[in-house]
Amino acid sequence: MSFKYAFRVRWVDTDVAGVMHYTNFFRYFEACEQEFYRSLGATHAKIREKYGIMLPRVEAHCVYMVACKYDDLIEVVMKVKEITDKTVTYEFQLNKKETNELAAEGYLKCIAVDLNWKATLLPTEVAGILRENMA
Amino acid sequence: MSFKYAFRVRWVDTDVAGVMHYTNFFRYFEACEQEFYRSLGATHAKIREKYGIMLPRVEAHCVYMVACKYDDLIEVVMKVKEITDKTVTYEFQLNKKETNELAAEGYLKCIAVDLNWKATLLPTEVAGILRENMA
Amino acid sequence: MSFKYAFRVRWVDTDVAGVMHYTNFFRYFEACEQEFYRSLGATHAKIREKYGIMLPRVEAHCVYMVACKYDDLIEVVMKVKEITDKTVTYEFQLNKKETNELAAEGYLKCIAVDLNWKATLLPTEVAGILRENMA
Amino acid sequence: MSFKYAFRVRWVDTDVAGVMHYTNFFRYFEACEQEFYRSLGATHAKIREKYGIMLPRVEAHCVYMVACKYDDLIEVVMKVKEITDKTVTYEFQLNKKETNELAAEGYLKCIAVDLNWKATLLPTEVAGILRENMA
Repeated sequence: MSFKYAFRVRWVDTDVAGVMHYTNFFRYFEACEQEFYRSLGATHAKIREKYGIMLPRVEAHCVYMVACKYDDLIEVVMKVKEITDKTVTYEFQLNKKETNELAAEGYLKCIAVDLNWKATLLPTEVAGILRENMA
Repeated sequence: MSFKYAFRVRWVDTDVAGVMHYTNFFRYFEACEQEFYRSLGATHAKIREKYGIMLPRVEAHCVYMVACKYDDLIEVVMKVKEITDKTVTYEFQLNKKETNELAAEGYLKCIAVDLNWKATLLPTEVAGILRENMA
Repeated sequence: MSFKYAFRVRWVDTDVAGVMHYTNFFRYFEACEQEFYRSLGATHAKIREKYGIMLPRVEAHCVYMVACKYDDLIEVVMKVKEITDKTVTYEFQLNKKETNELAAEGYLKCIAVDLNWKATLLPTEVAGILRENMA
Repeated sequence: MSFKYAFRVRWVDTDVAGVMHYTNFFRYFEACEQEFYRSLGATHAKIREKYGIMLPRVEAHCVYMVACKYDDLIEVVMKVKEITDKTVTYEFQLNKKETNELAAEGYLKCIAVDLNWKATLLPTEVAGILRENMA
């Protein structure tokens, strides 16, 4: 099962080479993740409040295939790839909708930490919901 | 007449004070402007190609009233405020939809320049379309 | 009296028009402010801890004269312009060092708030130090 | 042989969790790369002009160990890791200078493309200079 989020490349996303700067792909990974969590009735703020955990990234990766340009319509496709007792890994693909090209793909690995930034177990309820949404 | 564009505050938009960083309001001014132009069937890329002009900012201003937080739903309301032979000025308001508060308001003044960055007249057609959309 | 801070325009600062994006001038206003405070032996984090206040922006303004390009060496010149019982306003100029051109100028007005975001008096000690550094 | 570049974490680099946002590590990878090239007497702009090539990223990776906070002094250590006929890969480490901790490490893989974004050979001269600076 996958979650989808679409956006238009913004002027500020571009650089002097005329394409979306490579760091901005990671911004849209995260925008998609935010919408995914809200689709589950949650936000990182609510998770923090309810469970006393945060989910900082421990690893980020992206492979770039096709340049994205100003005003391109991009669809992010996200899957929950792997869940361990303390971590969750999401996979992302960015597709150029007008040309049906795979522009980039990557992943984010996150670890559950308590409010003192100490690694901790993923709450069972959170892990359960994420597992239901795995690929 | 006004144009509206809504967005959710992203994690990356926030800062250590827990609120949307003041520079990001300007990013959303511009996102709204981009959607406004596309609603008219145009983009800055098309305007550049068709008329040989760009519209860089010569002035930017924002007044901040209420802090915006992660995942807040914000509506940008944009109006074309003033058109001169070479410039166009847009006004923006950012409203927090959940609380119906005015979070910020400001403006962007842009000048028409040719591809050598020399100030030039706003193309009649562009000025006309913008004038039709004035407050 | 003024405070100076220099930087090189980064690739990520540029946009498809080949120049520094207008929002990034405000990022460098703030970078300069940060270095200014550290030159006084302070940081916003220390001020928050010591006095229980933060200094969010209530107004931001910038006028753009000359485009800044990738790798340009830019000097920010900052002055404390005005202090009231609750606010401080800084003025900034951005100069292109290689060509000795004024690229942009603007200001930031900040208000003292307590940790509940309620407007409060600037601590006497902070106001005093800032006043000593006024233009 | 390695190249070093130091910076202070900016307010805008932080997020509501109180730490540098994970995307900003990649911004500083690139800032270090820019300074590295200038230390060799080059910039991406000059390389583009002289050789007709650009060096977009085809892969980006970062592992995060220790959170970086506002105003932390961070040193980026960069090494040229691998050169092929068309690509160059840089390795980066981010060290927190005040605590002597490794905060993050990662790499960027870049491919030479001509001005039409077609993959091409790394110019011999560029490859030679990079090879001299390899680990």
